[in-house]
Amino acid sequence: MSERKYRRIVLASRPKGEPQETDFRMESLPVPVPGDGQALLRTIYLSLDPYMRGRMSDGPSYATPVQIGEVITGQAVSEVVESKSPAVKAGDMVLSGAGWQEYIVADGAKLPKLDPSAAPVSTALGVLGMPGLTAYTGLLNIGQPKPGETVVVGAAAGAVGAVVGQLAKIWGCTAIGIAGGSEKCDYVVKELGFDACLDHRSETLGAELKAACPKGIDIYFENVGGKVFQAVLPLLNPFSRIPVCGLISSYNATELPPGPDQTPLLMRSILTKRLTFRGFIVSDYASQQPDFIRDVSKWIREGKIKYREDVVDGIENTVSAFQGLLKGKNFGKLLVRMSR
Amino acid sequence: MSERKYRRIVLASRPKGEPQETDFRMESLPVPVPGDGQALLRTIYLSLDPYMRGRMSDGPSYATPVQIGEVITGQAVSEVVESKSPAVKAGDMVLSGAGWQEYIVADGAKLPKLDPSAAPVSTALGVLGMPGLTAYTGLLNIGQPKPGETVVVGAAAGAVGAVVGQLAKIWGCTAIGIAGGSEKCDYVVKELGFDACLDHRSETLGAELKAACPKGIDIYFENVGGKVFQAVLPLLNPFSRIPVCGLISSYNATELPPGPDQTPLLMRSILTKRLTFRGFIVSDYASQQPDFIRDVSKWIREGKIKYREDVVDGIENTVSAFQGLLKGKNFGKLLVRMSR
Repeated sequence: MSERKYRRIVLASRPKGEPQETDFRMESLPVPVPGDGQALLRTIYLSLDPYMRGRMSDGPSYATPVQIGEVITGQAVSEVVESKSPAVKAGDMVLSGAGWQEYIVADGAKLPKLDPSAAPVSTALGVLGMPGLTAYTGLLNIGQPKPGETVVVGAAAGAVGAVVGQLAKIWGCTAIGIAGGSEKCDYVVKELGFDACLDHRSETLGAELKAACPKGIDIYFENVGGKVFQAVLPLLNPFSRIPVCGLISSYNATELPPGPDQTPLLMRSILTKRLTFRGFIVSDYASQQPDFIRDVSKWIREGKIKYREDVVDGIENTVSAFQGLLKGKNFGKLLVRMSR
Repeated sequence: MSERKYRRIVLASRPKGEPQETDFRMESLPVPVPGDGQALLRTIYLSLDPYMRGRMSDGPSYATPVQIGEVITGQAVSEVVESKSPAVKAGDMVLSGAGWQEYIVADGAKLPKLDPSAAPVSTALGVLGMPGLTAYTGLLNIGQPKPGETVVVGAAAGAVGAVVGQLAKIWGCTAIGIAGGSEKCDYVVKELGFDACLDHRSETLGAELKAACPKGIDIYFENVGGKVFQAVLPLLNPFSRIPVCGLISSYNATELPPGPDQTPLLMRSILTKRLTFRGFIVSDYASQQPDFIRDVSKWIREGKIKYREDVVDGIENTVSAFQGLLKGKNFGKLLVRMSR
C-alpha cells in the first residue's frame, strides 16, 4: 500500500455567477494503484478551458455536468509512472482526461502517446490540441473562408482565437481580432500577424470595428458574445457565416441583460442578410483530426502559426487561474503545471 | 391615343406599424401604349405576399424599397392585350411583375408564358410559384429533412407553410403545423394531411407543442417569429435546422418587445444544441426551379399536394386584403383578381 498522497479538486457546490473558492474543495488521497491493463499517470500539464464553466452548472448542455463531490473534468498531459498495460510504459508522455488532480489511474490502451521530440508536449492541449482543432474545424467547415474575405474573431489572444486568425491569414483572408487591452492587441497584430486588433473595452468598439472592416465582415467566429457580438452584427455581409463556438462573456451571467428583447433584430438580420449561424463542438469534427495535425504542425514548423502559453504552477493555483480565465486575465493558452 | 384609363396603387407614405389606407394612393392614368418589342398586359391575378411589407420600409434589406409615389411591386398573372413583340401574342397568359396595377407595358421577350391547360394560371403565384418554390428550396436545402424527423411550420394554412408541411410528409417526416384558429387547424390536418396543427393564440401553445412533438423538433421552418418561435426554441433537438424564411409576426412592429434581452438564450441554444439558423430568399435557389416544377406538379396531380386560394376581387380591395394578410385574416394563398 502506497503511503504517498496526491491532491485533487472537486466541485463543492454549483457556482452562481462567478465561481468562488468555496465552490471547490481540495482533497488529499492516497495515490491509487493501477490494476491489470491500467497505468498510473502523474499530471504534468492540466488544460484550463472556458467550457469547464458549463460543466459546473446543471443546465441542459451537450455534456453531462460534473457532479457535486466529483473531480472537475479536463484534458491533461500526463506522464506514465507505473504501467500494468502493454500499451504504455513508465516515462511515456500521454494525453489523458485526468482533470483537476495530480494523479489518475487509466486504461493504458486508451491513452494517446505524445512524442516530446516532435513538439513540446504542452501543445497537445493548445495549438495542436482541442483548442487548435476547434479553430480549424469551425473555421473550415462552418466559416468556409474564401480568399479576400474578412474574418473577425474575439478573444483573439486566446487559445482558439489566435489560431482562427492565423488560419484566416493562411487561407487568404483579412483577419481582425478583438481582445482585452493593448498588450494583447499588440501581440495579436505584431506576433500573430492579424491585420488589426481592437480592444473590446473601448467605448467606440462598433465604430472602430467598422473602420477596420471597410468591406464588412464575412465570417465571425463567435466565442465571446455580448458587446463584441453587438458590434459585429450590423457589419455582417449578406451570406456571412457565424460558427458559434463559445460565449465566454455570458458564462458567469446570473440573469439576462436588460431589455428590450433584441432577438427580433438578430432574426431579422439572419433573414434579410441570409446569415448562417451554426453551433458546434470540437467532437463534431473528430474525423478531421489527422488533417488538422498534418496542416497545423507544418505551419508551426514554417513559422506561419505561433502560439503562446500562460503557465501557472501548482494545483493550489488552479481555481484562481480558472477564475481569471473567465475574466480574460490569462494571456495565451492557460495551463497548470502540476509537476515537472 | 387611348382614352382608356387604368388604376394603380402607389406608396403615399411609409407605414409606421400597421399599414393604413392613407399610406397608399389610388391613381388613374391612361392605359399605356407598347413600343417595339413590348407588350401591353392586363393584370388578371395580383399576388399579395408578406414580404411586401418590407418593401414599404426603407430599412436595410435584400431588396430596394418601393419609393414614395411608386407602384407597389409584386408578381402577377397577366394577359397580353396587345403585343409588338414576336415573343408573345394577344391572349397569351404570362407571369409578370406588374405590381399593384391593372395594366403594365413590359418587354415581351422577358415574360414567362403560362399554359392554362397544364394548371390553373393562378397557381403560378402560389403552390407552383414563388411561395411553393420558397417552401421547396428552404426545406430541402436548409432543412435537409430525413425520414422520421419532426418538422414544425407556422402559418401552416398559408401559401408557404401549407407546402412545407405537405413536402415534409412526402419526404417521410412528421409534420406539425401552427396556425390561427380552429378552422385553419382543421383544414391543415384534415385537408393537407399534417399530423397535428396547433392554434398560435392558445395560452398553452408551448405545452401543446411539446405534447405534439414527443421526439422534439428537428426542423423548424421559420416564417412567423415571436411567440411561435419562443414555443419552438426549447423543443429543438441537437443538430436541428432552422430555415429562416419570414417573420410575419414582427413586420408591423414599431418597437422591440420588452426585456429582458433574450438573445443570450438563443445564442446559448445555438451553441449547446449545435443548431443551424440560415436565412434565405427564394431567388437564392432559382436554379432549382425546374426540379421544383417537376416534383410539385406531379404531386399536385397525384393529390399529394393540395392548395387553397383566397381570392379578393377588384384593385379597390387590395389594401384591405394586404392589411388582413399581415394579421392572418386570409385563408390560403391571397390573390387579388383584377379582371377576368
